[in-house]
Amino acid sequence: MNLEYEDFMSVLGIDLGGTKVAIAMFSESGELLKKETAALDHRTGSSVAELICDVLKGFLEIEAKDPVRAVGVSVPGISRSKSGTVWAPNIKGWEDYPLLKELQALCGTIPVSIDSDRACYILGELWQGNARGCKDAIYLSVGTGIGAGILINGNILRGSQDIAGCIGWMALDRPFKEKYTSCGCFEYHASGEGIAKVARELLASMPEYSGELRDGDPGNITAADVFNAYEKRDRLAVEVMKQCVEFWGMAVANLISLFNPEKIIFGGGVFGPGVQFISDIQQEANKWAQPISATQVSMEESGAGGNAGVIGAAYLALQSVKNI
Amino acid sequence: MNLEYEDFMSVLGIDLGGTKVAIAMFSESGELLKKETAALDHRTGSSVAELICDVLKGFLEIEAKDPVRAVGVSVPGISRSKSGTVWAPNIKGWEDYPLLKELQALCGTIPVSIDSDRACYILGELWQGNARGCKDAIYLSVGTGIGAGILINGNILRGSQDIAGCIGWMALDRPFKEKYTSCGCFEYHASGEGIAKVARELLASMPEYSGELRDGDPGNITAADVFNAYEKRDRLAVEVMKQCVEFWGMAVANLISLFNPEKIIFGGGVFGPGVQFISDIQQEANKWAQPISATQVSMEESGAGGNAGVIGAAYLALQSVKNI
Repeated sequence: MNLEYEDFMSVLGIDLGGTKVAIAMFSESGELLKKETAALDHRTGSSVAELICDVLKGFLEIEAKDPVRAVGVSVPGISRSKSGTVWAPNIKGWEDYPLLKELQALCGTIPVSIDSDRACYILGELWQGNARGCKDAIYLSVGTGIGAGILINGNILRGSQDIAGCIGWMALDRPFKEKYTSCGCFEYHASGEGIAKVARELLASMPEYSGELRDGDPGNITAADVFNAYEKRDRLAVEVMKQCVEFWGMAVANLISLFNPEKIIFGGGVFGPGVQFISDIQQEANKWAQPISATQVSMEESGAGGNAGVIGAAYLALQSVKNI
Repeated sequence: MNLEYEDFMSVLGIDLGGTKVAIAMFSESGELLKKETAALDHRTGSSVAELICDVLKGFLEIEAKDPVRAVGVSVPGISRSKSGTVWAPNIKGWEDYPLLKELQALCGTIPVSIDSDRACYILGELWQGNARGCKDAIYLSVGTGIGAGILINGNILRGSQDIAGCIGWMALDRPFKEKYTSCGCFEYHASGEGIAKVARELLASMPEYSGELRDGDPGNITAADVFNAYEKRDRLAVEVMKQCVEFWGMAVANLISLFNPEKIIFGGGVFGPGVQFISDIQQEANKWAQPISATQVSMEESGAGGNAGVIGAAYLALQSVKNI
């Protein structure tokens, strides 16, 4: 295979999710040259790394004018920068998996960098999405769970042990309730999973309700069902989304007051359909946030969309070999 | 005047507060050589700058073996790094005051640096207090108001327009209430002023209460009164402090989940007497925070105490001339 490149180097971005892995090759200027996806098919432990290596090998063997100079990896969890190991709660056996060592063994002299998915999302927006040109921007990722990729003066906020940005644990509704123990207060109320949970709780408290979400087993209600019912102005769905906007607005206000960012970008599966609420979220946030900072931030949906992970991982790679 | 210095340079730290200004000279190694304080005496606008210049002049004229190489200033508000102007809500006429220009005119070739008080507090702890050796640490300042000085990978978090760390605006108690408009939710409930306000509100709702805080005009109740009553286990004071610990714990939890810091340091006038609650705050925070990050943080009272401002301002000066 021989691709025509216009640039002087190419980089690979690997986006590992809970159910699949995507690998993409980009030119230095950001052009997507090739992308492949492989399902994890319930693989666990070292089988997941073997799958990544199999696909990666194919990319490294491409005969190219401008060969791969660096590899970046986005992981759904914690990338421990000191040890090169990964904690990924959705992959069995990845409590402290030596991913860097395994990928580096395959890649030889080509440098491999690993970071958390939330860090890669904001890097993806920085390179090719709606954070282009920003130095202080935040990606709020709302899917099954909630996380934040935080860019400060051009650098990713990683924290002392690489666990920064765990905004799903944000405390927003006193007093503490036991149900927050496994996922955090904000995530409980306002993640994709949370939207479904809150709908189920409300349903149980409204015996007289006979709308959209009454059909079938309440245990099967999903966030998508709630969004669909919302489109028809179902009153339960309207109430769920009203609560959700309140939580999103408070969390965003706290990001504004603490970080004074230029931009907050909404992404993940829920934004998605959630983008219709961005102006409501901004209105709620404006009530709570430091008032000068509130006037200095803009809020947008993701520009990189579903590719934010691979794009960000590739940019992580590019940063490791170029002074950008 | 001729002081004996052991070091090769000295720096000045200026700590401007709402009612007074303190100026201190430090050796490069951090030794306090001389300190003066002057009351603002209700001065406004350029008279405040004149007072600072008067005291500063005295320090600059000291005949020293190791002359002053840099000046740092801590201001109670926003230091706009691009324009060198200062917004200080408690000093009339300082909406956009050109402090850098005025001080630099006096200091000539000696560089002047200005930053917010919350930034200087954590720098003070970094140099000579309980954040020594830290790269990721947070100073939670609780006095009349609330702010946070945030150190990330060794650098101060300033935000896109120098307004980061305004944690007094943190949203912690839904729904939004009009009373939060002027100061923010967290500050309303848990600053020095907030402790007094909450005590007054509770007093009004407890007609049967006849304890410590019933005497005199409720409008005169201060945080100090509440702490005094708490020592005697007055039930109103106990209830106020219980609520306060809950808010402090939630706010600290949010700092842990977002920043994954090594250390959180409690300072300001309220800590002070509030230090007795640090273990309770940690316990409350542990309920809410990202659980791994929660195990990685330690909480301590300020080591620099009332001198955190001048020490931090002097360290700001030192950083401007030395690569530290």
